[in-house]
Amino acid sequence: MTATDVRPAAVPPEGAESETEQVPALDAGAPESGRVDVDALSRLLLGQWADIRTKSRAAATDERIVRDDSLPFEGQRERVFGQLKLLVEGGHVLRAFPSRLGGEDNPGGNIAGFEELAVADLSLQIKSGVQWGLFGAAILHLGTPEQQDRLLPGAMNLSVPGAFAMTEIGHGSDVASVGTTATYDPETGEFDLHTPFRGAWKEFLGNAGRDGVAAVVFAQLVSKGVNHGVHAFYVPIREVGPDGRAAGFLPGVGGEDDGLKGGLNGIDNGRLHFTHVRVPRENLLARYGQVAEDGTYTSSIQSPGRRFFTMLGSLVQGRVSLDGASGVVSKMALAIAVRYANERRQFAGAGLDEVVLLDYGRHQRRLIPRIAETYAMSFAHEELLALFDDVFSGRKDTPETREDLETMAAALKATSTWFTMDTLLEAREACGGAGFIAKNRLTQLRADFDIYTTFEGDNTVLLQLVGKRLLGDYAKQFKGASAGDIAKLVAARAADSALHGSGLSRAAQAISDAGSARRSAGHLRSEETQRALLTDRVQVAVAELGAALRPASKLDPQAAFDLFNDHQHELVEVSRAYGHLLKWEAFTRALATIEDAGTRQVLTWVRDVYGLSLVEREIGWYVVNGRLSAQRARTVTGYLDRLVRRLRPHAQDLVDAFGYGPAHLRAEIATGIEKERQDEARAYYREERATGRAPISEKALQKSSKRA
Amino acid sequence: MTATDVRPAAVPPEGAESETEQVPALDAGAPESGRVDVDALSRLLLGQWADIRTKSRAAATDERIVRDDSLPFEGQRERVFGQLKLLVEGGHVLRAFPSRLGGEDNPGGNIAGFEELAVADLSLQIKSGVQWGLFGAAILHLGTPEQQDRLLPGAMNLSVPGAFAMTEIGHGSDVASVGTTATYDPETGEFDLHTPFRGAWKEFLGNAGRDGVAAVVFAQLVSKGVNHGVHAFYVPIREVGPDGRAAGFLPGVGGEDDGLKGGLNGIDNGRLHFTHVRVPRENLLARYGQVAEDGTYTSSIQSPGRRFFTMLGSLVQGRVSLDGASGVVSKMALAIAVRYANERRQFAGAGLDEVVLLDYGRHQRRLIPRIAETYAMSFAHEELLALFDDVFSGRKDTPETREDLETMAAALKATSTWFTMDTLLEAREACGGAGFIAKNRLTQLRADFDIYTTFEGDNTVLLQLVGKRLLGDYAKQFKGASAGDIAKLVAARAADSALHGSGLSRAAQAISDAGSARRSAGHLRSEETQRALLTDRVQVAVAELGAALRPASKLDPQAAFDLFNDHQHELVEVSRAYGHLLKWEAFTRALATIEDAGTRQVLTWVRDVYGLSLVEREIGWYVVNGRLSAQRARTVTGYLDRLVRRLRPHAQDLVDAFGYGPAHLRAEIATGIEKERQDEARAYYREERATGRAPISEKALQKSSKRA
Repeated sequence: MTATDVRPAAVPPEGAESETEQVPALDAGAPESGRVDVDALSRLLLGQWADIRTKSRAAATDERIVRDDSLPFEGQRERVFGQLKLLVEGGHVLRAFPSRLGGEDNPGGNIAGFEELAVADLSLQIKSGVQWGLFGAAILHLGTPEQQDRLLPGAMNLSVPGAFAMTEIGHGSDVASVGTTATYDPETGEFDLHTPFRGAWKEFLGNAGRDGVAAVVFAQLVSKGVNHGVHAFYVPIREVGPDGRAAGFLPGVGGEDDGLKGGLNGIDNGRLHFTHVRVPRENLLARYGQVAEDGTYTSSIQSPGRRFFTMLGSLVQGRVSLDGASGVVSKMALAIAVRYANERRQFAGAGLDEVVLLDYGRHQRRLIPRIAETYAMSFAHEELLALFDDVFSGRKDTPETREDLETMAAALKATSTWFTMDTLLEAREACGGAGFIAKNRLTQLRADFDIYTTFEGDNTVLLQLVGKRLLGDYAKQFKGASAGDIAKLVAARAADSALHGSGLSRAAQAISDAGSARRSAGHLRSEETQRALLTDRVQVAVAELGAALRPASKLDPQAAFDLFNDHQHELVEVSRAYGHLLKWEAFTRALATIEDAGTRQVLTWVRDVYGLSLVEREIGWYVVNGRLSAQRARTVTGYLDRLVRRLRPHAQDLVDAFGYGPAHLRAEIATGIEKERQDEARAYYREERATGRAPISEKALQKSSKRA
Repeated sequence: MTATDVRPAAVPPEGAESETEQVPALDAGAPESGRVDVDALSRLLLGQWADIRTKSRAAATDERIVRDDSLPFEGQRERVFGQLKLLVEGGHVLRAFPSRLGGEDNPGGNIAGFEELAVADLSLQIKSGVQWGLFGAAILHLGTPEQQDRLLPGAMNLSVPGAFAMTEIGHGSDVASVGTTATYDPETGEFDLHTPFRGAWKEFLGNAGRDGVAAVVFAQLVSKGVNHGVHAFYVPIREVGPDGRAAGFLPGVGGEDDGLKGGLNGIDNGRLHFTHVRVPRENLLARYGQVAEDGTYTSSIQSPGRRFFTMLGSLVQGRVSLDGASGVVSKMALAIAVRYANERRQFAGAGLDEVVLLDYGRHQRRLIPRIAETYAMSFAHEELLALFDDVFSGRKDTPETREDLETMAAALKATSTWFTMDTLLEAREACGGAGFIAKNRLTQLRADFDIYTTFEGDNTVLLQLVGKRLLGDYAKQFKGASAGDIAKLVAARAADSALHGSGLSRAAQAISDAGSARRSAGHLRSEETQRALLTDRVQVAVAELGAALRPASKLDPQAAFDLFNDHQHELVEVSRAYGHLLKWEAFTRALATIEDAGTRQVLTWVRDVYGLSLVEREIGWYVVNGRLSAQRARTVTGYLDRLVRRLRPHAQDLVDAFGYGPAHLRAEIATGIEKERQDEARAYYREERATGRAPISEKALQKSSKRA
């Protein structure tokens, strides 16, 4: 690894050297107005379950719980398995389970606590997610009370480590099509669980490689010659050895270890397959579907499709919690990168002193908009978690709230996990070579976090789910409408198109702007303008997509498929824009709750940076669709630059408020070490100059000899 | 890791199931016209040094040379060190060195061979880059012939593993400011090499952690009280043990191991520091600067600044080779992802069969534009390498060609390494959970490649170097021009601004388009249109920046710094656009050399996808600056979608032509294993249906009972 040889353009012209020493302080450029109350903001970010979050965050600094990079492959697994026991003992992971079994009936608080485990190690987080959030949660949500009583205690106290055997190597996103079958045999009162071909091996399952002694297996339930669709079965898979740990596979069960992965190597992912394994009838998790002794299938949900989605929907907490984990990881990454950017100096500025990285315009642009998006993400997640708790506590459990929850979880999980991967990449680069050293943590976080974008729902597939919901809502506008109503709607839409598309409104805007960038900027700063722009982006695109796809119902299957397929890319993009809108709205609502005026002022700028970053990213759409005049569009970037610069003095406060200190970050460069080194170097040169020991530079010598 | 539960929007409406089985073949949608001659295209991509490239690529499949994921930390280092010896024995790494010392005086061929080592393992590539491309090359380019004769043999035959000690923990990009000093002592005829503070420790050096017995150390050369700037010194650092391997540090030398990194763990990066280490005068690498016995400094280059940049410029091959390595890695990543996308099926289509991933519009959009950019990158790299060879063979070695080479290397290295990181991310996601398994190689490539974006020049700093060159060229237009000339230029610029900015040309374009998307698309397909758009993007932005920065020379240092800093972000962005333009032009030139009509046709579409992807990414700029009417801008995405779909049947050919088969890719999912699994599953269901064994679905039963 070597370095480069150029001075950035920010270096002043030759001869600009000054002999007076200027020390641009960390707070160079005093805040124009406003000052963040870091503690109060920190409390706001902790949200509704602040106590649990704080407790879990503190537990995640326990030296027995944190990641140990020095361990080899098997050692990592063994350490993480041991850590799960500590989590049980510490009471950190059972909050979602029923009080009657030792839990707390606290679904929201449970997720809040879970999210903070990312501070210790993402392997630990996901391994505990497998045990209690998937294996345990499947028993909780898909089992009957009797099954909960019988099967949950072992899952909860970890005497039964379990796998969540849903995905197959041949079917990931399309769970409805898994190949594993569970065929009821009324002769024995058992299901025959079977893997019919290689593609139906269960795959990528945490706890399957080594530790699991049971699994919740998803299979096609067949009885009396009828396939009732995918159901979950509780299946012991391994013997338990004398030490209480998993030993060999039980008869009929087989599998393999997934071996080394790109990350999360503290988890023993593996594959499972079943050769006519007998499962007692009582082990069908029977909340949503039961098979009587004679093989008669019954369910409270008549439609097989709705039944399937209800069952899977009960497991939405995985997505909710990954959205929250994204927030934790982004916050940590930015806390590391901003601290380093505030201490690291490179290239001389106008004075003798070298410039702190975060004083460079480009560096501000790399980090500050990502701080803004992280705030948006955090506030939106708090709303998502509240909705989740409303539904799963039973307080507001309706089909509509469930549907809202699933859509919001999908939109936020997809956009948040992508954003976090991007932030981890940028943070690593912004820390240069230091970012690549494992003890500065960024590379390991990225390696582990990577898979978050495709598990618990591949982001691309999730956004299509969101898109279908948006299209469905759009279609409802037309439902039950008379021909006259529809004509009016269409006319309104057409007028809108004419107004925006023809450039008329653009011309009007250009005139009203009258060339004043300041006034345009004032317009952009307005909450209403931002909302209108971001909302329009979604609404117009949904309307266009809806119109484009309307003919599908009259086409033959292949033509209908092709029509959808032609618009699949747009559908994903509009859903992504919707996810961002949700975050912007949540941020805006959160602003209203801030009492301290200085904090509210600064956070309003942060919100504006988020909103205008979104507009800037898709500035072409806004201009092409007549939402911004070319003139006003030009001001977006300039205004954003000004806002970013204005936030620069607050950057450290904004990441400090995330609440992750050196003990959480465990990154050497986030401990002040770079500042020590820079200060020592500056003191050395100051001393050299003061004592006249410093050699004269050849350049200076040449100049003076020319003068002579 | 679990899965998700939604069917993408591409699924046809309920009831669309067809009983006739359709098998969308891999080539579904026969090529409209044109067919790639894969072998001929493959030869074209091999370029000028095809033989060396082929030989190196083949050597990189040697089982002794390839990466072994199973090894622990120390084992990886030991394996890679052993592999370096094999490279020497195989004659793969000495081509750049002088014939008189056993080399081949072949700088271009040497880099071509080096690039292909990425096929084996990026640790191997970079460790050999440290030994021969940095340590050896520094002796070659900065040493005198006598020093070459004395010092190169050990570097070449690996009896002297060496570190390239330029970067310090306190100074990476700003090499001119390193803290290490080498003060000449005329009493003893030695330099006193010293590390004055912690920030001046040499850092991140390959070979410094364990294997290095010497180093080329960059330090401020001080003699007779004058600092002559950074020079390179050949410095033994460790004892050589009886086994010929590095033993303890020599007196005065100290250091530490960098330990675990985010990737490249086959390399022993480490730190070094020096406490008044005595270095003989003869070990100053003296090509560009010499110190006489009495301490008199002389140099053939009068200006200290130009001398410094000349010395560093002689080491440009690092950047050239990383641009090439980016191409190799992107090609491998896409070969893996496209093969998988052509075999993996998910969700039923219009028929009973499930749809191959690459038949989805969104999946095409994820992979095909990246194939296009990889082609552009590959052709541009071939031009860069030819220029490098022209300069370093001495055939065309002038200050101008050196400057062009350095600018082009910076622009391409920065854009290519960023693109490759993005491609590795997208390829991993496109392969879902399978992409995360180490044996499918994508995660490991990304972990190792990560640092390429910031070493051999941080991309952000490199693009500023490019930007300064662009601004300099722009300023030359004004140099020596009379006031009248300048007025004319300014008037022309203003007219241009008025024409484009006021919307007049846009209005004219809208009228000429006359609402015909087809005709607009025809326009976009034109090479001249693409060139004009991409060139305008750079020229206009440079002109605007030049105008904005002009006042700097009249400002005080701080104000000048602030002015540059306010435009730093734009400067980086315009340089990035310039890098893309270079690639587009190289692609276009390469098209003209293709004789086979079918291949030329397909590659022309590929070039168009690249060009229009660039336009689409910055569509806002084109509209805001009046280069595209809103109407025409709307057609860009639609036309790009059509082109991408047209290329879909050629995708496999296009990645096959990269020339990397299973032996190079070493990814299980690139071996046909997914197709086997999918075929087996489809055969199973076909058989079940044929024999009537398949259970009837509950849904079908409900429908038929409703009918009854």
